[in-house]
Amino acid sequence: MMNQQGHPEPDSEPPPSPSSPRTPKKKVSSKLNRWSMGRALRSGAVKIDRPTHRTDNNNDAPSRQVTTNEEADRKTSAIDSDDVAGKSIYMLSDGTGWTAEHSVNAALGQFEDPLVNRGFPVNTHLFSWVEDEEKLLEIIKQAAKQKAMCFYTLANPSMSKSAKEACDQLGVLSVDILGPIIQGIASHLGVSPSGLTRGAAGRLKTLNDAYFKRIEAIEFTIKQDDGTLPENLGKADIILVGVSRTGKTPLSTYIAQKGYKVANVPFVMGVEPPKTLFEVEPRRVFGLKIQLVVLQAIRRTRAKTLGVDTVGENRYSGFDLVRKELDFASKIYAKNPGWAVIDVTNKAIEETAAVILRLYHDGSDSSTSVPCISKRF
Amino acid sequence: MMNQQGHPEPDSEPPPSPSSPRTPKKKVSSKLNRWSMGRALRSGAVKIDRPTHRTDNNNDAPSRQVTTNEEADRKTSAIDSDDVAGKSIYMLSDGTGWTAEHSVNAALGQFEDPLVNRGFPVNTHLFSWVEDEEKLLEIIKQAAKQKAMCFYTLANPSMSKSAKEACDQLGVLSVDILGPIIQGIASHLGVSPSGLTRGAAGRLKTLNDAYFKRIEAIEFTIKQDDGTLPENLGKADIILVGVSRTGKTPLSTYIAQKGYKVANVPFVMGVEPPKTLFEVEPRRVFGLKIQLVVLQAIRRTRAKTLGVDTVGENRYSGFDLVRKELDFASKIYAKNPGWAVIDVTNKAIEETAAVILRLYHDGSDSSTSVPCISKRF
Repeated sequence: MMNQQGHPEPDSEPPPSPSSPRTPKKKVSSKLNRWSMGRALRSGAVKIDRPTHRTDNNNDAPSRQVTTNEEADRKTSAIDSDDVAGKSIYMLSDGTGWTAEHSVNAALGQFEDPLVNRGFPVNTHLFSWVEDEEKLLEIIKQAAKQKAMCFYTLANPSMSKSAKEACDQLGVLSVDILGPIIQGIASHLGVSPSGLTRGAAGRLKTLNDAYFKRIEAIEFTIKQDDGTLPENLGKADIILVGVSRTGKTPLSTYIAQKGYKVANVPFVMGVEPPKTLFEVEPRRVFGLKIQLVVLQAIRRTRAKTLGVDTVGENRYSGFDLVRKELDFASKIYAKNPGWAVIDVTNKAIEETAAVILRLYHDGSDSSTSVPCISKRF
Repeated sequence: MMNQQGHPEPDSEPPPSPSSPRTPKKKVSSKLNRWSMGRALRSGAVKIDRPTHRTDNNNDAPSRQVTTNEEADRKTSAIDSDDVAGKSIYMLSDGTGWTAEHSVNAALGQFEDPLVNRGFPVNTHLFSWVEDEEKLLEIIKQAAKQKAMCFYTLANPSMSKSAKEACDQLGVLSVDILGPIIQGIASHLGVSPSGLTRGAAGRLKTLNDAYFKRIEAIEFTIKQDDGTLPENLGKADIILVGVSRTGKTPLSTYIAQKGYKVANVPFVMGVEPPKTLFEVEPRRVFGLKIQLVVLQAIRRTRAKTLGVDTVGENRYSGFDLVRKELDFASKIYAKNPGWAVIDVTNKAIEETAAVILRLYHDGSDSSTSVPCISKRF
């Protein structure tokens, strides 16, 4: 159902092709036909129409619950050979599952060559809020049928024990992602883990200060995007500067997710940057630079996306202009030696963010000698 | 150096207090004084002024490189008893380190009680781009001195072997986060991992389609924030609706990071939502609801942050008005049974995002019977 999308971006969550989840809407898909048929066959047993998704009457997880027997029936009819082309990876979590997804995506970065060059697709399936044993076993049985492997992050020790036993019994290769980390921390701190999932009654559920600060940072960052409100630059934790298409906006929102207020100021040739930029502490300002040919290629792609005509395109991605703009930015950087300048050429957003945050935290921590990002919980 | 910030948000990256990284700027801090002193003492040996951070002449990682001996000197003088109050956790990576950070933060969610109630701080230190053995050993030695534990994600097998050996020798508790996952995938796929870090010469470095789609999604989402450009709603993958302070904006940017175009439309009492909202496929629209008292509390916090006066605050967070606004939203939801309605009360951004994405992908995949998010690599 998902289309091929090149290789995964290591250390990041590879975005799905935005159009892919909607494939079932394309009435021509043969896969859809099979799916629809299966759905029609099962329709007497299970109501899976949209309105049943409503979580109004429920508390946490989506309310689409059907009995295990019904699901088992659906399952059998739902599996066909086409769907298991390539290898499948199952990720199970009693929470959101983002930890499993993040770790597995990072690990998949080690297999770029077979994934890209051999046309050997890997299908990942993320199951969230697997909170009871029945559901757990059902998913593992399905994994066995598909010859998938299983990664799991389960807070409840009895659930993770069950997962391991079921996988071993059914010959499903499995890895407990969170278990060893939790055990390590428990030994180190000398306290036992709670064993509670986030939704559990015993877990703290109040939104804390950190939550509000993070939301504030995101809102600040969005309002401040693209040089708006230069009078607020002083309130930003981090200020990104650079010419168009150096990735200031996506980088800003990524860093904001981590709780930092980020502003960005575009450098447009011939336009003086706002005076306030030169009044903030230089250590907060990060200049983005990029290789000429790469920037030109990115701009050409951008112009195509926007459907700009050739004249407009040349104005934006012409070699000469791009070079002049980069020179313009370089000169400003040279005049501000206190700013860190980061080369973003071919860097993933996560990588540039890591460089910036390390520099930002650098010197703020006396307990370690090598540059690092330190936090206290 | 970091201040206490309640308990970590499980399954999410707990944002540092935005003010904390700047603590060294507070000239009154006794810690700063120690740090400054240490810095002054070391100043003959190592130049750590800002301009050395520049990466202009370099390629990937920040250029703040000093020799190991110099660092060892700095290290010795830099460690003092105060800095190791509480327990330390080291995270080492030959990449960004976000995988280690994400996993460790999720695991720390299992220790909320001791962290919150016992005033027992845990300090995490994230070391990125640990690319040579010397640096690796230096950090582990430092961990041993601080009685820290080590988590590592190292793509190069010889590096991760060295890490394990050094930790064992020095009595440092250590956990290899990525190793077991990579090994599992290697067995499953029947191919060997590349062993290459992202920065390595053999790794693919071109920005792929997925990268551009993700950037496009983020830019779309920001432009579309807060109901702007209702004529573009049809182009969104996901549309969030709800009254003020239900978290539409932070949720939008989080989902956009995963490559989906998200629009959000605020419901303001007495104002008709844009007509285009009712023209898009209902399955793309997600209504956010929240408990009355919780919303009221959030709004009160918000009004304080904004410095709104009492009259303004009452208008925004008054019990009666908040109730009426929620009723107004409920009525619109009732009229649109095809929309999924999500209760966001006390949910972390990551949790609501997981609910939405699971519903969004639901039914788009015939290979599994339990709702899940599937992707193909």
